Amino acid sequence: MATDLTRIYRNYIACLNAQDWPNLETLVHEDVCYNDQPLGLSKYRDMLERDFLAIPDLFFEISLLVAQSPYVATRLRFNCTPRGILFGLHVNGRRVVFTENVFYEFLGDKIAQVWSVIDKAAIETQLR
Amino acid sequence: MATDLTRIYRNYIACLNAQDWPNLETLVHEDVCYNDQPLGLSKYRDMLERDFLAIPDLFFEISLLVAQSPYVATRLRFNCTPRGILFGLHVNGRRVVFTENVFYEFLGDKIAQVWSVIDKAAIETQLR
Repeated sequence: MATDLTRIYRNYIACLNAQDWPNLETLVHEDVCYNDQPLGLSKYRDMLERDFLAIPDLFFEISLLVAQSPYVATRLRFNCTPRGILFGLHVNGRRVVFTENVFYEFLGDKIAQVWSVIDKAAIETQLR
Repeated sequence: MATDLTRIYRNYIACLNAQDWPNLETLVHEDVCYNDQPLGLSKYRDMLERDFLAIPDLFFEISLLVAQSPYVATRLRFNCTPRGILFGLHVNGRRVVFTENVFYEFLGDKIAQVWSVIDKAAIETQLR
């Protein structure tokens, strides 16, 4: 049901914000795909850990959530100070605010597919 | 209901693909906002008409649709040959494939808010 997925998804975001990596396997499928590429849980976790290294004050804020089983779609908002280069842009510790619109497909109670688009253009505009 | 919004949304996409601009007012609210900016129906229509001028073979393809009233979220896929500069990128008639993840909030049976993120980075990669 959509309400169950909403609850699980909020646990997933809490897991990311706590950098509670041992818990990730309870929320993300072993064979997770990211933007149609087979990635797997281990590389998915690596990607998230790299995000937190690049953005020490990274925090996932849900600004909109739409759920229809087996899908959850969210608009995530970030307000942070990435350390160096982010998405090929020289941010170098400046504060940037940007969004990510992202879809998740669940297999049972775990995220199995992620389709993400990050608003890189918004960051470019803020760095001008 | 979600099924009603899905039906209305598919009519909206058919309206865009047919460039049936007189019909747009039956699907989009007079005071429509785009990425949190008040735009209004007239400027929203102007924006869409400019898109079709810049991309003569523009076609909106729904690759994923998630509906939970009053929201619809879709992942749109584009496979097209933009004429000149698109999103600041010199495409100049080359074929590019990219996606847009977009949320819509309905007021009654009309689109009142749109929150869109277009995958500009994917286009950059294809132009390299």
